[in-house]
Amino acid sequence: MANKKIKIGLVGFGTVGVGVCKILQNQADLIAKRSGVEFEVVKVAMRDTAKERDITLPAGAATTDWQDVVNHPEVEFVVELMGGTDTAYEVVASALKLGKPVITGNKALLAERGEEIFALSEQHQAPVYFEASVAGGIPIIKSLREAFVSNSVVNLAGIINGTCNYILERMTDAGLSYQDALKEAMELGYAEADPTLDINGWDAGHKAILLGAISYGFLPDPEKTYVSGIEQVQLSDIELANKLGYAIKLISVVKPASDKTIEIRTQASFVPQTHLLAKVDGVFNAVAMQGDEVGDSFIYGRGAGAGPTATAVIADLVDAAGSAAGFLPYNAGSYTVADIDETETAYFVSLAVKDEPGVMAQITSHFSEQGISFSGTFSNVDPSSPDAAMNSVSFITHKAKLGTLKRTIKGLESLDCVTSTPTFYRVESFDS
Amino acid sequence: MANKKIKIGLVGFGTVGVGVCKILQNQADLIAKRSGVEFEVVKVAMRDTAKERDITLPAGAATTDWQDVVNHPEVEFVVELMGGTDTAYEVVASALKLGKPVITGNKALLAERGEEIFALSEQHQAPVYFEASVAGGIPIIKSLREAFVSNSVVNLAGIINGTCNYILERMTDAGLSYQDALKEAMELGYAEADPTLDINGWDAGHKAILLGAISYGFLPDPEKTYVSGIEQVQLSDIELANKLGYAIKLISVVKPASDKTIEIRTQASFVPQTHLLAKVDGVFNAVAMQGDEVGDSFIYGRGAGAGPTATAVIADLVDAAGSAAGFLPYNAGSYTVADIDETETAYFVSLAVKDEPGVMAQITSHFSEQGISFSGTFSNVDPSSPDAAMNSVSFITHKAKLGTLKRTIKGLESLDCVTSTPTFYRVESFDS
Repeated sequence: MANKKIKIGLVGFGTVGVGVCKILQNQADLIAKRSGVEFEVVKVAMRDTAKERDITLPAGAATTDWQDVVNHPEVEFVVELMGGTDTAYEVVASALKLGKPVITGNKALLAERGEEIFALSEQHQAPVYFEASVAGGIPIIKSLREAFVSNSVVNLAGIINGTCNYILERMTDAGLSYQDALKEAMELGYAEADPTLDINGWDAGHKAILLGAISYGFLPDPEKTYVSGIEQVQLSDIELANKLGYAIKLISVVKPASDKTIEIRTQASFVPQTHLLAKVDGVFNAVAMQGDEVGDSFIYGRGAGAGPTATAVIADLVDAAGSAAGFLPYNAGSYTVADIDETETAYFVSLAVKDEPGVMAQITSHFSEQGISFSGTFSNVDPSSPDAAMNSVSFITHKAKLGTLKRTIKGLESLDCVTSTPTFYRVESFDS
Repeated sequence: MANKKIKIGLVGFGTVGVGVCKILQNQADLIAKRSGVEFEVVKVAMRDTAKERDITLPAGAATTDWQDVVNHPEVEFVVELMGGTDTAYEVVASALKLGKPVITGNKALLAERGEEIFALSEQHQAPVYFEASVAGGIPIIKSLREAFVSNSVVNLAGIINGTCNYILERMTDAGLSYQDALKEAMELGYAEADPTLDINGWDAGHKAILLGAISYGFLPDPEKTYVSGIEQVQLSDIELANKLGYAIKLISVVKPASDKTIEIRTQASFVPQTHLLAKVDGVFNAVAMQGDEVGDSFIYGRGAGAGPTATAVIADLVDAAGSAAGFLPYNAGSYTVADIDETETAYFVSLAVKDEPGVMAQITSHFSEQGISFSGTFSNVDPSSPDAAMNSVSFITHKAKLGTLKRTIKGLESLDCVTSTPTFYRVESFDS
């Protein structure tokens, strides 16, 4: 195959940026033989050009000014790996205005400013690729866009934040408290120095927005999506979930809620232990997708790290070197994000109660009045102490709208026999 | 996006062929919006044009002569879904000679005559696409070729025959005999009327050859690959495997055995129950791939059926409509298939013995003389009858070459205390 040569510029030279350059050097022969493309990194913007790095760039390639990269006359593709949403926006927008294809791993940028970016992409006929922005080593964007091009997405659910998955696993397997598990994750480098965006759910929330865009062809309004994190997950919740046959995982769900609305939500949910998503350990990511023709599909891999993320960047570089058109919203105006209170799942609800006659009847009648029924009720879950006072009860409900559940819980709080604010989790069934 | 129109011809109009036409009709709008391509089926060759089918073709599209399709002046791409390796070869070769890209689901054809087909593909600059030929609904070819373009494949292992997986699962879960499970699979339509190629392992064996081609860029000689099936799997083997923490699965392994040789083998193997491959149920397929940069990856989905297979065909159609180059062997001459006797795994070995003093010592010394050591030995596995005669022993060995194991077993057979031909399974560890 005759080889095509493409010159690229890189903005951001942290772990992933260095990884991209290393793999392009080490695997140049393999990439050229498989794809017919040779890449040359001609310009790299970084904060500190003097910093020691385990890689040699061509003389003159390093700069501290991103404009040197984007405006460099030989740079054909711009790879943006700097993060953030301000300067990164200028980098991406400037490249697109010059008609240069952009490859980015910046989920926050695309989730928050996708509208502007994809408009520029269309206007200047310069595609934007972003496989690296969702679950690094998992080719989920390519699978949804290309492999499943003929399928409507019936349901999609993912574990797309490795930090949270690690923390929840350590709470489950080692009985660590949330704080201790977080501390361990930070010590092992699985969580950022500032892990806020991981644990509050927004890292996964941004990725869920991009999965919604790819699946349904519109740019979801981030403000209308639902995101919560794992800070509120108690060890006792996990223990009870395990006893009942569930794992607690930070799950992002994307699926149609009606003809016109798409449900996009991220939260700690109950997942049946028999589901493949319950088997996703440690810092791994996975996405379960159900297509109307292909049926159930499941893709698993490393979600972060230099090797997996750089692998995704290079796959995008090769795609950009072909004639593939990148992503453009094809359903803008057809969909909006569903009101979270209108979305339905089963729920696990747990509350502290007074140990007195008639309590169970009062509580269950209250659920019943709201039209919520149960698939299971649990009290004195510890069978080794059957004589202990019944001071907590838990329920697994049939499916109900979140709004209905919230009203029910508000009502429960006002009952005299209820002595705590009820806690609840969604129980995911991963159906349409 | 301005839409490109492509006219296609189809040879073979069974379940999958009809599925392709139906999805192209039903999802035409989605496919066009996502990919910018509109497909029109202009000519379809089938055995019996009068047969009732749940689909309407354009007037004049149906024919019984494949040449009408391939030679039709308007047909730009040829989709071959007829099966077999004789006429199908003529169809594919004729299309390529006319410079028409070919999309095929024919694993036997490509595995057995790939050398000729890819030579024609290169000569006439007409690409061949074959996602549908390996694990229908799983985008494994696309993932290996494109998503992991920058990765060397360190190890690849798959469950790529749903019929065998269903039979083994029913033996495991319902305690059915092999014959009863096979009968059930046939009644449910999960096995062909003639299931020979499924149960003797060659359906998976052909797919393993294609996975080897994609991973390492050469066309493996089928005669040098190793293939065995599931006919010899005993219910008692499965029960013992389960007790020891393993599932028995038909596993296809593709990985480097040396600098110059690739190990390609399909057989019923022991799989640790903690591995994701052990969780693959029923007729589902899955492939676990380890790349040198991306690390562990796992893809799961339906391996057969109209919807999943047609999904793969249409993904290939869209790729062919772009400028992607299809697959050409890029490492021809660099690799050969490894001698199966030189390949290494751990093994489970089981044999019937006389219940007399010194038996264990005789047997274990014999292993030891051949340089094979154990990670576990088992006798009287049923702990509820500790006084039963010890008339069978089993071992899990450390890694050894298959040739060494075979010699060891041959020697065991000649020992006076051994009363049966030893049986053995590979114990897979899915490492490099």
